Amino acid sequence: MKKEFAVIGLGRFGGSICRALSEEGMEVMAMDVIEEKVNEFSSIASHAVVGDSTDESVLKSIGIRNFDHVIVAIGDNIQASILTTLILKELGVKHITVKAQNDYHEKVLNKIGADQIVHPERDMGKRIAHSIMSNNVLDYLELSDEHSIVEIVASQRLDGHTLISLDIRAKFGINIVAFKRGKDIIVSPQATEVIRKGDILIVIGADVDIDRFEKTMIGE
Amino acid sequence: MKKEFAVIGLGRFGGSICRALSEEGMEVMAMDVIEEKVNEFSSIASHAVVGDSTDESVLKSIGIRNFDHVIVAIGDNIQASILTTLILKELGVKHITVKAQNDYHEKVLNKIGADQIVHPERDMGKRIAHSIMSNNVLDYLELSDEHSIVEIVASQRLDGHTLISLDIRAKFGINIVAFKRGKDIIVSPQATEVIRKGDILIVIGADVDIDRFEKTMIGE
Ligand SMILES: Nc1ncnc2c1ncn2[C@@H]1O[C@H](COP(=O)(O)OP(=O)(O)OP(=O)(O)O)[C@@H](O)[C@H]1O
Ligand SMILES: Nc1ncnc2c1ncn2[C@@H]1O[C@H](COP(=O)(O)OP(=O)(O)OP(=O)(O)O)[C@@H](O)[C@H]1O
Ligand SMILES: [Ca+2]
Ligand SMILES: [Ca+2]
Ligand SMILES: [Ca+2]
Ligand SMILES: [Ca+2]
Repeated sequence: MKKEFAVIGLGRFGGSICRALSEEGMEVMAMDVIEEKVNEFSSIASHAVVGDSTDESVLKSIGIRNFDHVIVAIGDNIQASILTTLILKELGVKHITVKAQNDYHEKVLNKIGADQIVHPERDMGKRIAHSIMSNNVLDYLELSDEHSIVEIVASQRLDGHTLISLDIRAKFGINIVAFKRGKDIIVSPQATEVIRKGDILIVIGADVDIDRFEKTMIGE
Repeated sequence: MKKEFAVIGLGRFGGSICRALSEEGMEVMAMDVIEEKVNEFSSIASHAVVGDSTDESVLKSIGIRNFDHVIVAIGDNIQASILTTLILKELGVKHITVKAQNDYHEKVLNKIGADQIVHPERDMGKRIAHSIMSNNVLDYLELSDEHSIVEIVASQRLDGHTLISLDIRAKFGINIVAFKRGKDIIVSPQATEVIRKGDILIVIGADVDIDRFEKTMIGE
């Protein structure tokens, strides 16, 4: 059976979740207290409902406990976010994701049994900070505190070199798992592959080694 | 010479950028109109200043044009965000990143010459949507519209199998570039490596192939 999602709060964060789930063909119920927001999502979500989620009877009437996963994306009104989460737990919703505004909010949400707590602005701030510290790192995936996969733009210094000639693995302890050239993605590149300036290298390794590679071979 | 950053607007997003840059030892000037916010960052950033960034004389007096990169993280007040960006451009700031609230805001920012425009809530909404659609995908890095690197939790079905025995590359066209087992990261795993339930596989490939792998070999 298809999973059914409900998104409560259609701000930028909740709205984006609702859109992304709907685009992937998921069943999504969208709810907000503001009618205009709900109208915006009536053609995107499977159902769009005007309602206040702090009102237990509203959640009951739409049969909220039949949803597999409810996302609470209420922002500034922390009280409403907490009360909504409490009601969802009481009504027996199996999986609840909640957006937190700050550490205090997160603590309360944890105590009342939210399954997943997210900090979109904080997490994105970290990502953006990492990408702007180096003009050459475009995006990254943190594997652990000390390991990452990063996208690095190949500099002039790398232009024309092959992976063997650079001997990156031995010299830096990192691996190039793929690279992007325009629209092409080359996965597991051959050791004889020639790097061009502007290629985007997808590199995996320890942060310190990636750093060293970037400083030595890419520079500013 | 060390790069100097300025962050204007110390909400969750701007605050997180300021923290992350400072933690990495960067020089950061933090500014907000609200004194309490500024106080919060006085021990984190190199400098913390109370000021209204829509006031040109304020930006001039702190020598804003000497900063290498200015991040405008003003949220709800779109007018203030736009006016600030205009002034920064006029004063000759080399690189400006601005948080946008919606598409209209982004269009204006583009026209007036913002170098990078970011949508933290929207981007994070997309990421979270992808991770909640499958309980087994923990995080991902989008390489292109059609290729990604994803973290997938190994199911019971994979337990005890080796990479050769599964023949994942031939059967699914995807590559396992690493895996995580507890705190260990195994990069470029040997073909004879035995997978354990709960291992986190770092997989690269076309989205359709990763999807197929996940549906066939991981399931719900
Ligand atoms: N009790 C409630 N029931 C349903 N929706 C609610 C409730 N309270 C707030 N909302 C809705 O939640 C949405 C998000 O809240 P708000 O705009 O305060 O958060 P935000 O953090 O600024 O949002 P974002 O950063 O995601 O744009 C709003 O559209 C608001 O109308
Ligand atoms: N003209 C200005 N000069 C300096 N700071 C400003 C100005 N206008 C707003 N700010 C500050 O910008 C910060 C972020 O703005 P706001 O809280 O409206 O955005 P937000 O999108 O809800 O934030 P976030 O989602 O990042 O928490 C606030 O701390 C606010 O005081
Ligand atoms: Ca807000
Ligand atoms: Ca790290
Ligand atoms: Ca916000
Ligand atoms: Ca995609």
